Amino acid sequence: MNDSRTNSANGPPTVFGTDLHLELHGPGLRAGLTDALREAVRTGRLASGSRLPASRSLAADLGVSRNTVVESYAELVAEGWLTAQQGSGTRVATRVEPHRAAAPNTPRARPDKPRPRYGLLTGAPDLANFPRTQWLTAARRALTAAPHDAFGYGDARGRVELRTALADYLTRARGVYAEPERIIICSGFHHGLALMAQALRVRRVRAVAVEAYGLDLYRGLLANAGLHTPPLYVDDHGARIEDLARLHDVGAVLMTPAHQYPTGVALCPDRRTAAVEWARAAGGLILEDDYDGEFRYDRQPVGALQGLDPERVVYFGSVSKSLAPGVRLGWMVLPEELIPEIVRAKAHGDYMTSALEQLTLAEFIASGAYDRHVRSMRLRYRRRRDQLIEVLRQRAPGIRVAGMPAGLQTVLELPRGTESAVVQDAARQGLAIRGLTQFRYEVADCGWQLPERDALVVNYAAPSDSAWAGVLDALCRVMP
Amino acid sequence: MNDSRTNSANGPPTVFGTDLHLELHGPGLRAGLTDALREAVRTGRLASGSRLPASRSLAADLGVSRNTVVESYAELVAEGWLTAQQGSGTRVATRVEPHRAAAPNTPRARPDKPRPRYGLLTGAPDLANFPRTQWLTAARRALTAAPHDAFGYGDARGRVELRTALADYLTRARGVYAEPERIIICSGFHHGLALMAQALRVRRVRAVAVEAYGLDLYRGLLANAGLHTPPLYVDDHGARIEDLARLHDVGAVLMTPAHQYPTGVALCPDRRTAAVEWARAAGGLILEDDYDGEFRYDRQPVGALQGLDPERVVYFGSVSKSLAPGVRLGWMVLPEELIPEIVRAKAHGDYMTSALEQLTLAEFIASGAYDRHVRSMRLRYRRRRDQLIEVLRQRAPGIRVAGMPAGLQTVLELPRGTESAVVQDAARQGLAIRGLTQFRYEVADCGWQLPERDALVVNYAAPSDSAWAGVLDALCRVMP
Repeated sequence: MNDSRTNSANGPPTVFGTDLHLELHGPGLRAGLTDALREAVRTGRLASGSRLPASRSLAADLGVSRNTVVESYAELVAEGWLTAQQGSGTRVATRVEPHRAAAPNTPRARPDKPRPRYGLLTGAPDLANFPRTQWLTAARRALTAAPHDAFGYGDARGRVELRTALADYLTRARGVYAEPERIIICSGFHHGLALMAQALRVRRVRAVAVEAYGLDLYRGLLANAGLHTPPLYVDDHGARIEDLARLHDVGAVLMTPAHQYPTGVALCPDRRTAAVEWARAAGGLILEDDYDGEFRYDRQPVGALQGLDPERVVYFGSVSKSLAPGVRLGWMVLPEELIPEIVRAKAHGDYMTSALEQLTLAEFIASGAYDRHVRSMRLRYRRRRDQLIEVLRQRAPGIRVAGMPAGLQTVLELPRGTESAVVQDAARQGLAIRGLTQFRYEVADCGWQLPERDALVVNYAAPSDSAWAGVLDALCRVMP
Repeated sequence: MNDSRTNSANGPPTVFGTDLHLELHGPGLRAGLTDALREAVRTGRLASGSRLPASRSLAADLGVSRNTVVESYAELVAEGWLTAQQGSGTRVATRVEPHRAAAPNTPRARPDKPRPRYGLLTGAPDLANFPRTQWLTAARRALTAAPHDAFGYGDARGRVELRTALADYLTRARGVYAEPERIIICSGFHHGLALMAQALRVRRVRAVAVEAYGLDLYRGLLANAGLHTPPLYVDDHGARIEDLARLHDVGAVLMTPAHQYPTGVALCPDRRTAAVEWARAAGGLILEDDYDGEFRYDRQPVGALQGLDPERVVYFGSVSKSLAPGVRLGWMVLPEELIPEIVRAKAHGDYMTSALEQLTLAEFIASGAYDRHVRSMRLRYRRRRDQLIEVLRQRAPGIRVAGMPAGLQTVLELPRGTESAVVQDAARQGLAIRGLTQFRYEVADCGWQLPERDALVVNYAAPSDSAWAGVLDALCRVMP
């Protein structure tokens, strides 16, 4: 009966017997024993149906009290790993087969390519200048002042403190018609668009027009929600609104009126008005992605289109360009009739956004830290843009910088036929950059074709200050 | 020409003329003028088509430079509010009609009923004991140590720091088979279930079985995703797994094995094994909602069902009960084959979860603060539960406390036919509480009926320490 051999050498106690070799470690003898037994069953070292040592003998082997073993067995019986039957002792449950950990074959968000030395890919602001200290100060103030119920389940629209701070900010800085009641907090533009796509599907909308230059990520999101995405031609005055009249079943149009992404032009006044007119006549919606509205360098930013008709335009903004995408805070300013639909979509999704982050941002805005940060980054980005233009003027005088002096990225026009070679050359020099071609979106039967255009989209905001000089140098070296 | 009268009394400068009365305030003369003009157009005080004063005369009236007015007009032309045509001056754009702010009729998450004095509604932990200081300490450490790119766009699965900390914690504390690669971070159980519902729909699953006692919120979420939700009978051993054999098209079953919500029983060992067997035989999934697995007062918590078969069980956890729902952090531990589908659902939804919050929780767990908090709350909740039982024994000896000594809520059995009256009586006494009936879920043709049962679901965790004595007293007063 007591045929197991005790190994009482140094190290954790182990027991050999009925194929049982246990290494006990971790805090608590019983928890350690339970874990070791569970692991032995899981990995198959204790085979299905096999009988465990009687509690008395295992206890003696391990030098623990019998009660410890009895409790450990009971726990594993309750969990379904073991079975205990009168007369037949404790056995490994027959139905449980060992789990074989499959070979690691999980997807990764970033492939394991060597990282480029300099990143000029679009999308991110200067992350090295994220205001960590000021953000933590705001977090401390916000969390200290928050009522207890701020930590509980709350309003799916978002914290009223943040919606109030944003209503004030957006009215003041972007000319948005923003009452707190119209604002819904989400995790960024991407999330807001996903909620909107759901609401549009519930309304049986079949298509959302998009600009012929833009991010495939958003087109993919809309397509995934079952929406067609016919493109609008884009020229130097922005998206050609008249194209909408020729499209069928379009219930909404997604646009970047203040600064077309990524070509960098502004929607001209006539087309701003025409867009609102289309929305009124067609009963459609304009989805205004105001992704970098804070950043204009030659004049005050053009106000949001939404102010022209808050019942026809959905305004989207976020901190992804002004602070950092990792904060995951964005907002939608909604036509009144859409509010219940978006609240419902949110309530059936992530339910609500982090109260702690929302309160922190509300404090960050109300204290003036947000304005200060935006002003400081505006100066910094403007200086970068000026330096880029100046260094190109000196070292690559044939290269034209297109688009308005605004935002976090610009377009460098290249000689015809060189884009692909320049992008590849850049990659070899450790410079991650995209050609404009990657943002083109045309469909076969739309009746027009975008002109051939070789260009680079340069996110001059992304590099850190210390990398910037190297970036400029590398960029000039790859210019044809 | 210069027919407008200047009001140069104290207060902001205003101008009367061509129906124009402007009040300039805010920082910056030009911005103030632009805002005032925009508002005048928006509210209709400046009618469509009407002509604005010449820039020179308005400048003189306001005592500002002409350039200020010219720039202000240009900005509003660019925004589409005004039009400027050679020879006809500057006019209000004819197509823009004033926006009428509709009567406030927006939905509210909480109706404006008088707030009850004491809340015993289920779901929330003790929010007054949220560890604000320790959380801020973790946030400071995490944000100070984070690499710059942590603030950028990242892995949709979540930060590896948090997934690693959770893998360790869940293995140790809940017996979960958790590798970091299998973990996806989301905003709570609700959000995880929403992602899962999408993935199940893509797999053409038509029904998800649920427990006959549970939250209508989750059934509603599943129904909204187009899934049927046939119920499983619930008795003293948990959900009756054999019911699954009689149901058609069921691709998954949503369960609370460690502590049935809200009846408070544990799924018995036989049924744990039977559930896994069903999943293997039917190719189905078990969705394990381990909402309060940390809180068991009489013994070590029963380990997660997921450990029995990590390829058939999806494990869901969150900080909503252990810390607070307002943090909005949860996790799913996934079968390997489901990972790409859930990542896709997340990438088409909120894209990723706040990096700052994730890093803070990772630090909070790694530093041991999470374990300390859970231990401290466990003691606190256990004491509350003991006090509840003791005070009922003294003052309402007929009332039985049902369910295991675990979790944040318990069930008080009432005499037949009294539940509704007790709940109403409680409301009159300022005690917000729900009857068990509200959690029942039966359908017409399922072949069984839950026994009649009058009971209260008491979330003893929710009240603050200072309110607790009052809660106990009020509760005893409403007992029949």
